[in-house]
Amino acid sequence: VTKPLRIVLCGFGNVGREVYRLLCDESPRLERLGFSPVVVGIITRSRGHVYVPTGITSEHLQMLAPKDSAAVCTTRLIEQMSADVVVEMTPLDVFSAKDVMSHARAALTSGKHVVCANKGAIAWGYDELSALASAKARLFLFECCVMDGAPIFAMVRNCLPAARILKFEGVLNSTSNYVLDKMLEGVSMEEAITMAKRAGFAESDPRLDIDGWDSAAKIAALANVFMHARINPLEVVRQGITQITCEQVQAAARGAMRIRLVASAVQRQRDVLCEVKPCRVAHSSLFGSVNHTSSVLSITTDLMGNISIVEHDPGLLQTAYGVLRDIIEVASFNK
Amino acid sequence: VTKPLRIVLCGFGNVGREVYRLLCDESPRLERLGFSPVVVGIITRSRGHVYVPTGITSEHLQMLAPKDSAAVCTTRLIEQMSADVVVEMTPLDVFSAKDVMSHARAALTSGKHVVCANKGAIAWGYDELSALASAKARLFLFECCVMDGAPIFAMVRNCLPAARILKFEGVLNSTSNYVLDKMLEGVSMEEAITMAKRAGFAESDPRLDIDGWDSAAKIAALANVFMHARINPLEVVRQGITQITCEQVQAAARGAMRIRLVASAVQRQRDVLCEVKPCRVAHSSLFGSVNHTSSVLSITTDLMGNISIVEHDPGLLQTAYGVLRDIIEVASFNK
Repeated sequence: VTKPLRIVLCGFGNVGREVYRLLCDESPRLERLGFSPVVVGIITRSRGHVYVPTGITSEHLQMLAPKDSAAVCTTRLIEQMSADVVVEMTPLDVFSAKDVMSHARAALTSGKHVVCANKGAIAWGYDELSALASAKARLFLFECCVMDGAPIFAMVRNCLPAARILKFEGVLNSTSNYVLDKMLEGVSMEEAITMAKRAGFAESDPRLDIDGWDSAAKIAALANVFMHARINPLEVVRQGITQITCEQVQAAARGAMRIRLVASAVQRQRDVLCEVKPCRVAHSSLFGSVNHTSSVLSITTDLMGNISIVEHDPGLLQTAYGVLRDIIEVASFNK
Repeated sequence: VTKPLRIVLCGFGNVGREVYRLLCDESPRLERLGFSPVVVGIITRSRGHVYVPTGITSEHLQMLAPKDSAAVCTTRLIEQMSADVVVEMTPLDVFSAKDVMSHARAALTSGKHVVCANKGAIAWGYDELSALASAKARLFLFECCVMDGAPIFAMVRNCLPAARILKFEGVLNSTSNYVLDKMLEGVSMEEAITMAKRAGFAESDPRLDIDGWDSAAKIAALANVFMHARINPLEVVRQGITQITCEQVQAAARGAMRIRLVASAVQRQRDVLCEVKPCRVAHSSLFGSVNHTSSVLSITTDLMGNISIVEHDPGLLQTAYGVLRDIIEVASFNK
């Protein structure tokens, strides 16, 4: 007999629906890992919520519909639903993360593990939430925040013991990378942004991608976790790609170069310097090889030298897998 | 008080000495992780052995000197030394792995964990040794066999749960990659091999690199661990770079291509197809970006799509770190 793991999904947009589907479709595989996922609660912003202790089926999903009445307070719902883990998948607010923080706090305080897909929580409140999680002996996991399902946090946590991270840099924003690739083909930035929106990987406000805010949130999140930097996205030295022209992209290409929006963090004597800016890189370099929506993170350590992880053309499934990975870790902790 | 971990080093060449140095120099870091490494035994092929239950110091190392008398049997030494873990670092025999297998067997049978830096063990006997390890409730680890310290085995084991590996491919042999890069500069293959030997990263018989045997052993090892393939290096479809000419390398470069020795494994209906062969890849592709002694492994999974790990310009320290990583895992199991 496998142990049930009671899950609340907070946020039910594209990622939330894909996580739900994955938990349903892959439950035989998860049972072989020793647990049965049971989605007991779904909380949405504008379509109400549903709570079914025996597990939400597709019929119950019909109950989610646009509501006229004032929304019930999300943090209260999180506290009241009886569950093992809350998966936070509400939209990112790069400038404050107030909501995601209060959701995570409510979950941890009421004794639930937290799997967080919203990078705001670690870009703004990693120290507080990880301390709260240890005080409550709960897990606070956030694998898919930066590179979808590519297990960068888990790898550093589990696979690089004793090594110190000295610096890291990456191409972390799909939309900017895609837009720069399109500009090379002569497509205007505005047009390329529209294409990225249509393809579904741009932020709801794509300016947050293009201005470097998404990368700034990601590099702050990584620096907080890897280097205890206590930095927030506003403190990242940030320059987006808005000033880049098609001519510049094409001139670079004639010199066998590419322009990439590079995010980096370096450990200095007393603090961590985090930066986001467009850089010219050789087309034949690792960063130059990362096209379209792919992303890369290069990590330099003292004992292990330099290793990189590349995620190729991620889609919704990969993001949902990042969430699933964390849910599996919760289940194995919960045994 | 930290718990001592008693270590036997079997093999004391370049890697063995670097591991010994790392264990001495970094012991404060390891103590913070909860254990004190104590190297109690060193076994060499031609310079005898030394066993000091309180820990081997640099003075004891003087005792290792060329011996006239017949060598004491290594497996007997492994069995008799009282220790927690044996680190196997004897030279690779790609064609049989008889010695490394008997060393690993002796260690496991006498209740010791095994950390293996010799890929022969997993290319030839993964199933047997992992079954023996579980029967004895000991660990059998081998992180540095394929990509030095880049934690590919640990990542798949710990960070990609529930995902099935469908195929993988990589550029895994430093010498071949370095030689192909030098040939692009007009250096002859023979000369480039000599340079690789002088730089210290070629196999003692560099033909094993150039003929694709080292890559074949690595891809067999990976296929055995990731796909339960039960394949050995002789069963890998293998073509080395011996037939490649400077002209071919340069003609490829004129077309913005590079030649790389690519090792691959694909899960088929009933078996796994493993192959090593020179391939033309775009210079601006991921594999094209991997220069000199760097290496790359790309893994395709069903749930996580495609991720790659790149190790940049590894040296002896990275290989030794791969061993250290496994020793830390043993120590945390041993708690």
